[in-house]
Amino acid sequence: MILALSGGVGGAKLGRGLADVVEGSELTIVVNTGDDFDFLGLRICPDLDSVAYGIAGLNDEDRGWGRRDESWHCEQALVEFGVDPWFHLGDKDLAIHLLRRSLLASGATAGEAMAQVARSLGIGCAIVPMTECRVETRVITNVGELSFQDYFVRRRCEPMVSGFRFSGAETASPSPTWFPAVAENRIRGVILCPSNPFVSIDPILGLPGVRAAFKQEGSTVVAVSPLVGGNSVKGPLAKMLRELGLPATPVTIAKHYADFLDGFVLDVRDEHFEPELRAMGLRVEVCDTLMSDRHASRRLARSCLDLLIECGSERAA
Amino acid sequence: MILALSGGVGGAKLGRGLADVVEGSELTIVVNTGDDFDFLGLRICPDLDSVAYGIAGLNDEDRGWGRRDESWHCEQALVEFGVDPWFHLGDKDLAIHLLRRSLLASGATAGEAMAQVARSLGIGCAIVPMTECRVETRVITNVGELSFQDYFVRRRCEPMVSGFRFSGAETASPSPTWFPAVAENRIRGVILCPSNPFVSIDPILGLPGVRAAFKQEGSTVVAVSPLVGGNSVKGPLAKMLRELGLPATPVTIAKHYADFLDGFVLDVRDEHFEPELRAMGLRVEVCDTLMSDRHASRRLARSCLDLLIECGSERAA
Repeated sequence: MILALSGGVGGAKLGRGLADVVEGSELTIVVNTGDDFDFLGLRICPDLDSVAYGIAGLNDEDRGWGRRDESWHCEQALVEFGVDPWFHLGDKDLAIHLLRRSLLASGATAGEAMAQVARSLGIGCAIVPMTECRVETRVITNVGELSFQDYFVRRRCEPMVSGFRFSGAETASPSPTWFPAVAENRIRGVILCPSNPFVSIDPILGLPGVRAAFKQEGSTVVAVSPLVGGNSVKGPLAKMLRELGLPATPVTIAKHYADFLDGFVLDVRDEHFEPELRAMGLRVEVCDTLMSDRHASRRLARSCLDLLIECGSERAA
Repeated sequence: MILALSGGVGGAKLGRGLADVVEGSELTIVVNTGDDFDFLGLRICPDLDSVAYGIAGLNDEDRGWGRRDESWHCEQALVEFGVDPWFHLGDKDLAIHLLRRSLLASGATAGEAMAQVARSLGIGCAIVPMTECRVETRVITNVGELSFQDYFVRRRCEPMVSGFRFSGAETASPSPTWFPAVAENRIRGVILCPSNPFVSIDPILGLPGVRAAFKQEGSTVVAVSPLVGGNSVKGPLAKMLRELGLPATPVTIAKHYADFLDGFVLDVRDEHFEPELRAMGLRVEVCDTLMSDRHASRRLARSCLDLLIECGSERAA
């Protein structure tokens, strides 16, 4: 089994490529749920939904979130009811929230709800929440500690970041849909998608036992750089790095995962960092990491798989 | 205070007229909640919403339910997720369900949720659920006992009706938003809207103490005929009456309420029933009860108020 750890958009794009080149039953995408929140009495799971939409080809490429060909009639009616539409709910997008609400109300776990959504979208691989427990990503900023959605959506990432906290993580357990396979070293490898390390991957790594499992002998983990030419492709990563006093380079990302990382997929525009990464003991794959279309997603997915094999055979040698 | 007891569409039309001619603070519309049900984890309150939409002028006159200028993008997406759309949810209509869900999730009562909805729609009068308890209208038919929505929406009123049951009514209490005023005889009068007596008004009358309160000395109750020329204006009333072996006439309706009724508003097309109704000891107002527009609703509302005054002064005399 291949495990991919994912946040939202970047993970969704690589996830789509992986879903194209890996047999469905062999691929599990573990998705950050630290951004999940309640809105209008619905449980909103932005990253899970982004990954599902991305793999099903329903996502809006231009907007970068939600569904394509979307309309906003319900939201307009909510505004007329005096509801603050700080989080945008498209009419089509509402269907996934209602289906999840319905399934949760009838006793399904978050994982079971997601599995049914994925099945009904014809998705062959497993898309699983990192945990069934409530873990909430909190962003520590110059205006105080904020919930992720408050920071990300309401305040458009404007506050200066000084740290992160994953409320509830200490007592949460990683979901049984994926963690036992990792803990028992029954997987071929782990791919860290080009997602934000602080707010997309760290919530997963922060669950009890996960980091230790990745450090085990025989575990193979590769990361795809979420930075290209010093910038994040999408989202506030480069800004966060600056505010944290860290260089916005792939080396910073690799160091973040250094205690368990075996390989690194570096964007071709950043190939001057290759020696430094190799000096850290990493196998490096240099390629175009910008996933401008499905073909590019598939190509990057193949590069990740090649690197996993290379790292694994190196260890075996 | 004027109290109007209402089901869905007919009550909504008369409610609109009453809201136009009675000071908001003086009018309370008590709405049947026996048809309420859960769908996709949302609490759906069809009659409360019909009354609110009707009074706010948002209702779809042609369709007879839901909002005007409606779209169905969310429902289409739900169908693609494999959800059976037996109950239709328009995109705009979803807003009221989401707002209610949100308010209930944050601890509001059904009555408080409805009050906020009504306020945000600029509605001046009180629209209140008959009870805060769960009472479920069950329709006893030739194909077994059915939930109201199963009978009404799924099966399009096709099964033959032999009776009704209000599950939970025995232990439910009428809502404190309206019942104490009735029990303590502090109201000017009660209007039974031209709603179905069996499935719209009886659930309210079936709540403990309500019928007894209407029978009190000094209580004035008038009913508006829901039948015109032997037919129900909307809905399955005439069919139900046939199946129950009862004549589809205003006299049947008046007899249904005979133990507490003081006045009856009869449609002009049925004026030949006036002597029989008067012989029952009722004051009768004959007028056009078809509410084809807002003006007609207002006119009928005035007739109801006139009749209430007439009944009240008769008693005083």
